[in-house]
Amino acid sequence: MAGNSFGTIFKLTSFGESHGEAIGGVIDGCPAGLKIDFSFIQNELNRRKPGQSKITTTRNESDSVEFLSGIFDETTTGTPIAFIVKNNDSKSADYEKLKDVYRPGHADYTFDKKFGIRDYRGGGRSSARETISRVVAGAIAKLLLKQENVLIYAFVKQVGKIATTLNYNTIDVSAIENSMVRCPDTIVAEQMIKYINELKLSGNTVGGIIQCAILNTPTGLGEPVFDKLNATLAHAMFSINAVKGFEVGEGFNSINKLGSELNDAFVNESNSIKTLSNNSGGIQGGISNGMPIYFNVAFKPISSILQKQNTLNILGEKIEIKISGRHDPCVLPRAVPIVESMAALVIADYFLLSKLNKL
Amino acid sequence: MAGNSFGTIFKLTSFGESHGEAIGGVIDGCPAGLKIDFSFIQNELNRRKPGQSKITTTRNESDSVEFLSGIFDETTTGTPIAFIVKNNDSKSADYEKLKDVYRPGHADYTFDKKFGIRDYRGGGRSSARETISRVVAGAIAKLLLKQENVLIYAFVKQVGKIATTLNYNTIDVSAIENSMVRCPDTIVAEQMIKYINELKLSGNTVGGIIQCAILNTPTGLGEPVFDKLNATLAHAMFSINAVKGFEVGEGFNSINKLGSELNDAFVNESNSIKTLSNNSGGIQGGISNGMPIYFNVAFKPISSILQKQNTLNILGEKIEIKISGRHDPCVLPRAVPIVESMAALVIADYFLLSKLNKL
Amino acid sequence: MAGNSFGTIFKLTSFGESHGEAIGGVIDGCPAGLKIDFSFIQNELNRRKPGQSKITTTRNESDSVEFLSGIFDETTTGTPIAFIVKNNDSKSADYEKLKDVYRPGHADYTFDKKFGIRDYRGGGRSSARETISRVVAGAIAKLLLKQENVLIYAFVKQVGKIATTLNYNTIDVSAIENSMVRCPDTIVAEQMIKYINELKLSGNTVGGIIQCAILNTPTGLGEPVFDKLNATLAHAMFSINAVKGFEVGEGFNSINKLGSELNDAFVNESNSIKTLSNNSGGIQGGISNGMPIYFNVAFKPISSILQKQNTLNILGEKIEIKISGRHDPCVLPRAVPIVESMAALVIADYFLLSKLNKL
Amino acid sequence: MAGNSFGTIFKLTSFGESHGEAIGGVIDGCPAGLKIDFSFIQNELNRRKPGQSKITTTRNESDSVEFLSGIFDETTTGTPIAFIVKNNDSKSADYEKLKDVYRPGHADYTFDKKFGIRDYRGGGRSSARETISRVVAGAIAKLLLKQENVLIYAFVKQVGKIATTLNYNTIDVSAIENSMVRCPDTIVAEQMIKYINELKLSGNTVGGIIQCAILNTPTGLGEPVFDKLNATLAHAMFSINAVKGFEVGEGFNSINKLGSELNDAFVNESNSIKTLSNNSGGIQGGISNGMPIYFNVAFKPISSILQKQNTLNILGEKIEIKISGRHDPCVLPRAVPIVESMAALVIADYFLLSKLNKL
Repeated sequence: MAGNSFGTIFKLTSFGESHGEAIGGVIDGCPAGLKIDFSFIQNELNRRKPGQSKITTTRNESDSVEFLSGIFDETTTGTPIAFIVKNNDSKSADYEKLKDVYRPGHADYTFDKKFGIRDYRGGGRSSARETISRVVAGAIAKLLLKQENVLIYAFVKQVGKIATTLNYNTIDVSAIENSMVRCPDTIVAEQMIKYINELKLSGNTVGGIIQCAILNTPTGLGEPVFDKLNATLAHAMFSINAVKGFEVGEGFNSINKLGSELNDAFVNESNSIKTLSNNSGGIQGGISNGMPIYFNVAFKPISSILQKQNTLNILGEKIEIKISGRHDPCVLPRAVPIVESMAALVIADYFLLSKLNKL
Repeated sequence: MAGNSFGTIFKLTSFGESHGEAIGGVIDGCPAGLKIDFSFIQNELNRRKPGQSKITTTRNESDSVEFLSGIFDETTTGTPIAFIVKNNDSKSADYEKLKDVYRPGHADYTFDKKFGIRDYRGGGRSSARETISRVVAGAIAKLLLKQENVLIYAFVKQVGKIATTLNYNTIDVSAIENSMVRCPDTIVAEQMIKYINELKLSGNTVGGIIQCAILNTPTGLGEPVFDKLNATLAHAMFSINAVKGFEVGEGFNSINKLGSELNDAFVNESNSIKTLSNNSGGIQGGISNGMPIYFNVAFKPISSILQKQNTLNILGEKIEIKISGRHDPCVLPRAVPIVESMAALVIADYFLLSKLNKL
Repeated sequence: MAGNSFGTIFKLTSFGESHGEAIGGVIDGCPAGLKIDFSFIQNELNRRKPGQSKITTTRNESDSVEFLSGIFDETTTGTPIAFIVKNNDSKSADYEKLKDVYRPGHADYTFDKKFGIRDYRGGGRSSARETISRVVAGAIAKLLLKQENVLIYAFVKQVGKIATTLNYNTIDVSAIENSMVRCPDTIVAEQMIKYINELKLSGNTVGGIIQCAILNTPTGLGEPVFDKLNATLAHAMFSINAVKGFEVGEGFNSINKLGSELNDAFVNESNSIKTLSNNSGGIQGGISNGMPIYFNVAFKPISSILQKQNTLNILGEKIEIKISGRHDPCVLPRAVPIVESMAALVIADYFLLSKLNKL
Repeated sequence: MAGNSFGTIFKLTSFGESHGEAIGGVIDGCPAGLKIDFSFIQNELNRRKPGQSKITTTRNESDSVEFLSGIFDETTTGTPIAFIVKNNDSKSADYEKLKDVYRPGHADYTFDKKFGIRDYRGGGRSSARETISRVVAGAIAKLLLKQENVLIYAFVKQVGKIATTLNYNTIDVSAIENSMVRCPDTIVAEQMIKYINELKLSGNTVGGIIQCAILNTPTGLGEPVFDKLNATLAHAMFSINAVKGFEVGEGFNSINKLGSELNDAFVNESNSIKTLSNNSGGIQGGISNGMPIYFNVAFKPISSILQKQNTLNILGEKIEIKISGRHDPCVLPRAVPIVESMAALVIADYFLLSKLNKL
């Protein structure tokens, strides 16, 4: 119950510290009989990994996944799928000097208050390196959902104040991965890259918005009361480091419309029930209605700025620190596969649960 | 696993349909020895109930709670606390005509696709009347938290485009309940009430924003990875009907700042560690740092507008409907205690969990 | 997590004290579309209720079940099914004098140590009256399983040293309910009844063995490691008051055989795979193999003897007590439907889970 | 929910197949601040490992545990503790010929029916090699319980029909580990060893009884209704391969006594409440009363006999097989640490849960 598992049926348990032996996970509840495409999974990991472009951190982590169980003849067997990614390029010495320091915006202080001990090397358990386990599990969830024709994709919609006006339904999806910043709007992407590079030089960081869409979701996913599909998506997204906001469909903008403007009218399109507009973002009463699901996730700038900061040490004494290390000026490009992965985990889990809705 | 329970230790299981026998719940995991103040609980229910003012629905539901178990000598015994609120003023006949209809924005269609059957009377299980169970359980959670000096309050910050510039830390908390619309900014409150009354006449509905604050939260609440305190708060808020957006601390506005501007510097105030600013909203790395927790919840206008709408019936045929019934033009004033209750459930649960953090 | 819920998908949450307002429960996870036969459910409750024959307690509890939610048009809707049985014939005054006393063999002392408070009236939460919730939920599980042709029955195999040599596969199942003691062996049943009546006069109590069989279980139920079908059956049976032993298939008698004698050989009977013997009791590697499942449950004599006993009061002082009240000299006849109900809950839950085994 | 996790707070998730990369597990919920004695853990594994004496299998598996996370400075950090034991001595080729065969008494058939695929090498997931994960986790639970002075030990009480009359409270505990068969009754132990060696020659197998005791358990462990301490112990023991029976305290023998004989009288021993007898085995109403907990676990002879057997192949055709491989004629000596480990997991979990009983 210490919060390291996610999902009800398709359940990921995550483990590992940034500079420990390995980051890894166990997926319990993946049905037997799913063909595993290992190169797809590794490719998903590569989309997340540091050093993939000039605008990310220069840390070079190979991040190769090894599977320990649950797969036989490249097929899931219904038993737990355990996997690890060994930690190689760990310069723990860099962190020794931070062991007695509370970095502003980081979890050093709260971990100390909660546990009375923490692995301070590279953020330990609070490092975003933990998301490796989500990307591996999310890749398997995607393989499961591919069989149902479900398609999940995310892209960077905004970096600081630079935003594309394109949305999930107007972008060229194939253009996302061609962009270093994972923004499919070529002109805006250039502006974003330029801006991120400037920040990199000044040792500062910036946040932004990722938009994610899920197409071809079956109707009937989501549980009516506490585990509404949108509630679990919100939970999933807020479990990602640096996330500060989440909205589904029209989200905060729903406030600017009246009920008469916002209601999505049902229409019959060749014997299939659709809605004319999709302000609800594909979810009504917490349950998918078959229309595209889309949502925005707001990331704050990450806390590891490479500038002098005043803070306290663990004795409560004032000190000045300057974080060195190698950090992303903007995590959004690398967070795109993480957002997709968490979405895939939610949808795969609810898809399995939905087999139990009725006799 | 059908999503009708919330919480890990302090766990509410909710039941009941809008026009069934009763709405109720069972709380399992409340520690023994908590004194129960029944009038406080009933008062919390009264804050939620319909017909409490001229700007809410005129449905007159007495909503008296009866406890069936788990309390002895006005004290919790550590066994499950079951309670019911009987449904009295149910005019089911009003709904008979909607039985074959998919109301726009409602869960009629998605329930049908999910379960193949639904109790169509008053929305059945998808009715916001279900939140009664949350307010009763939330009131007990508040009694538990009162012992720890934790204070939770929410208020209406925005209705449509009418917003107060006051925030959780600048309002007069005692003014919230003096306001019919639960906005403590007297002048803005008047504008909101006037606007809601106009919408009521036109049969339209409007959404808005509720801001909630949690003061005196102990440090160390929240689990590092999937069950970050903010993630579970997001889950809790998105489980409330009509919620479309959620943000913690600076939320979406964090995008407009750089890391150097957003980081909250630690300071030592008479041997107590605080942060100078509170952009993170009292949560770092998913764990409470002892500063005030605050967040915004965006509600869409509810779907029950009293105007003609085009839609489909269950055969997929085009029809025109006009919902009658008695509905709130703006649910936010009545949603304030629901937001507080869900926050109380989360904090009480994580407070209990935190007793297991370390030896 | 306070142990008042049972099941993973088909999940019962139980509540209520012996002399509180009501005993009840909530079933979450019953699929939509199950026809509910109310008279069958009430009949199951009648099989459990006190005062049903001259060998049970003479307490006269009507034990009528009322459903509060989750059923519409006599059909489950997929939402939580809540039900209560009001407590009528509660002579709480009888118990006032026991409020400061630790009755030998009872849970008075352990409840006090655990919770620091207890509802002492009629045993409060530790009363076997709680099993009402299991019988109601078990009856619904039986209705679900009836659709799969699964048949569950139990009978009294032994009372004290009086035992029938008949087994689940040699008895006349229809004779169980014709017997006041629920032993289908007419001659042995007479001896049991005579013996129980003698004990009743002397104010003493006796235990025995109930054997239960589950026929037509689909293959593939049960989870390989911790949640083996036999493990969860053991858990279920040991959750019943007064149970002290449990064995599946040949059970303890397996020790008297060698591997070569005990292994059940597979045979092909008209293209259906069976085993020649059934020493394993229909479960191999924790998973049902389609053969009859059978097991024995050992009940100790209940602790409420109507004789003088030395014990302590809550101050730790020696006292002599004589329990009056109306108690069963032998609970086994009334425990038969409880054993069946717990078995039905397990099988229904695992049947639903098994839909998720493979793609 | 596929049954590979055990525990509520102190929760083990187990993974791995007999001939896969590794057997391992993740413990989530171990409190921070526990000193880890690695040599104690390895020693517990050595008590389980094959080839430890002339009466066990001659397979030589080194079974060295590697920890991947959750421990820093030899201390738990409150984050998940992941560990693996690599599979070295795996002669998968031995099993190739069994891939199309349903071995009598084994889980081959039931796995196939459940999952439609199985890793047939060495029993795959159904192999008792999986219990490695339980022994590692159980060792950590023992370290936690040692701080509370709780002592857990088990011994072989019976092999086939050879039984010691000594019990948990009359044996010399230190003699257990001095005995190859883990029976502290020297004379009986010799008979057992002789008998097991004879069976080894004839290629047959035999079962028996392990008795386990838990001393110094705090009062108040166990949940009143479904998760009675005895119920969870039953679940835990029945989750071990080859277990067919379980009894607590006097167990099945309770049937031979009347209530007046079985009730344990409370007595005050120097201001501490005890019971004069301990027929209940230290548990009343499902909750520990502070007296020693003791129980018996019945193991059937394992199914891997080295004799010719008739069976079916996966096409349902009659075949004759003779299992070769290296198997234990009697698993009980090696099962002793497994029984202790499962008991430790239960008690550690309930000990942590009990911190939440009351305010």
